[in-house]
Amino acid sequence: MRKMNVAIVGATGAVGTQMIKMLENSSLPLGTVKFLASKRSAGKQLSFKGETQTIEELVPDSFDQIDLALFSAGGGISAKFAPEAVKRGAVVVDNTSHFRMDPTVPLVVPEVNPEALREHHGIIANPNCSTIQMMVALEPIRQALGLKRVIVSTYQAVSGAGNLAIEELAQQTRDFAAEKPLAEWEASILPASGDKKHYPLAFNALPQIDVFAEGGYTNEEWKMINETKKIMGDDTIKVSATCVRIPVMSGHSESVYIETEKTATVAEIQELIANAPGAVLEDDPSQQIYPQALNSVGKKETFVGRIRKDPDEETGVHLWVVSDNLLKGAAWNSVQIAETMYEMNLFE
Amino acid sequence: MRKMNVAIVGATGAVGTQMIKMLENSSLPLGTVKFLASKRSAGKQLSFKGETQTIEELVPDSFDQIDLALFSAGGGISAKFAPEAVKRGAVVVDNTSHFRMDPTVPLVVPEVNPEALREHHGIIANPNCSTIQMMVALEPIRQALGLKRVIVSTYQAVSGAGNLAIEELAQQTRDFAAEKPLAEWEASILPASGDKKHYPLAFNALPQIDVFAEGGYTNEEWKMINETKKIMGDDTIKVSATCVRIPVMSGHSESVYIETEKTATVAEIQELIANAPGAVLEDDPSQQIYPQALNSVGKKETFVGRIRKDPDEETGVHLWVVSDNLLKGAAWNSVQIAETMYEMNLFE
Repeated sequence: MRKMNVAIVGATGAVGTQMIKMLENSSLPLGTVKFLASKRSAGKQLSFKGETQTIEELVPDSFDQIDLALFSAGGGISAKFAPEAVKRGAVVVDNTSHFRMDPTVPLVVPEVNPEALREHHGIIANPNCSTIQMMVALEPIRQALGLKRVIVSTYQAVSGAGNLAIEELAQQTRDFAAEKPLAEWEASILPASGDKKHYPLAFNALPQIDVFAEGGYTNEEWKMINETKKIMGDDTIKVSATCVRIPVMSGHSESVYIETEKTATVAEIQELIANAPGAVLEDDPSQQIYPQALNSVGKKETFVGRIRKDPDEETGVHLWVVSDNLLKGAAWNSVQIAETMYEMNLFE
Repeated sequence: MRKMNVAIVGATGAVGTQMIKMLENSSLPLGTVKFLASKRSAGKQLSFKGETQTIEELVPDSFDQIDLALFSAGGGISAKFAPEAVKRGAVVVDNTSHFRMDPTVPLVVPEVNPEALREHHGIIANPNCSTIQMMVALEPIRQALGLKRVIVSTYQAVSGAGNLAIEELAQQTRDFAAEKPLAEWEASILPASGDKKHYPLAFNALPQIDVFAEGGYTNEEWKMINETKKIMGDDTIKVSATCVRIPVMSGHSESVYIETEKTATVAEIQELIANAPGAVLEDDPSQQIYPQALNSVGKKETFVGRIRKDPDEETGVHLWVVSDNLLKGAAWNSVQIAETMYEMNLFE
């Protein structure tokens, strides 16, 4: 195949910035690379492989001659422009939630369900950050032992909410350091920029990510529930989730409880993780070794530890799962999808 | 009864400081109040009800004429001095873990099992902070619906680890504000002061509280498991726990998943919480109302929200439970035990 022309939509965002880094180090044979953003960001410059590039305004014709378009500029932008990109012959990897539950759109974690890529009609959806890392950890267990249920509580970083949320937490942190009273800390983004009320995150835990939907669950929680079943291709797995934002910049942590069909020892489960693609076992209580959000930053892998059996339930197992939400949770998984499609000759 | 002479052991610690405040506002008829601490702190002064008091060095005879001794100075101190206090006629309320699982020692949350106080032999144990608030939330549900199992993931504040841990997180936070590189942040206390390795907590989540014990669980996790069964007086309840420290100063949050014997609607469970002693229902997703660690600080109640049914499990219910770990989790529960004993005429 000729070299691939790539467009990044939302190049200035928290995820877009990481997509550029992942693409710089990608095995894809790159032709031209375009950086697209809103009118507001058009004309700004950024560096790609040491060369200065100018951001262009996103319009439908931006996708002429483009083979691969990576979208991370919000669901509304994807809804409007992804079909335009497909119409012009591009394959779209979309990091927003817009197309994820569309039955005609593959929802892919390359370590878990790469074969789903063959069914694409131009758009491939990148799952939610908190779902992806859980899938990397659970798929090897599901394959070996079967998976009956998942109960997850997340400890999510602010970077998943974008650059303004990162700055909001940083400012509250500086306010603390300057001994500014709590009542004067400003919050206008978190927990959900589109929602009515905003609360400080510094030295707090906010049990709301995205807006509330049916049954008292947030959209983020429904994403984990529904996407898990779609990616694993099994609607019979029971899944429930509690999603919580904590004062961490990057690196999502998850307390994952599962029940398997077959029983296994901790050592056997550790071995499954150690041999799983994309996963790294960090699990030695005697040496205080377990995954930590701060250690995950900048790494593509998903780190798994604290593996242990429920003392009262034979098939119950706990895991502590950590990954850089901007990388495996977003930018890296998107670029990895493109690399996987390239290796599967799906760009022909 | 005559006025009660009270001793506070560990008066200068994070919990001791709050015990003094709780005692200042207590309904107990106070006689003399003594403040005891290690030789290092003896001679220091503090204020009680507007009067300056001098801290005395803790020795066995400190408890002569004492009716009530509140201990919060570490398990070793309790092991050594609580029996000395009892020998001299005092009732001990011990905030350490030392006596909690002793079958002859009542382990009490006054809203849950006050009758256990009648069985005391001089020492009453105050449960672990993370256990207490969970008991306040779950007992009304257990009474009405029966409780089959509990799976809890905690989001715990540093103040439970003492003043040095609070200062360690504060310093790391100031280091962040001063743009000091992460590699230069100092950690010598957290996650567990007595353990070998120490990690930064700022912008991190540490899945270790206290040291590791059998089965890959930490002592903190075993406390939640074993104390729940003892307080509820039911060994058949399945309990499992993951305890995590997050960068919060005070206020423990908990993602609690339960399965009940009988099914109930969310509205029925909300009503159980709204009517429960010591609990406050904060649960209105449409108004983004849910418990928050920052809002809990300085309050004696346990706040409960995010109540919702597991979409895939008829009897499964999620709750988000938040309380000030230094108050209901420690100082207030201790003083409340004393007040309850006084009302039950157990000091006679």
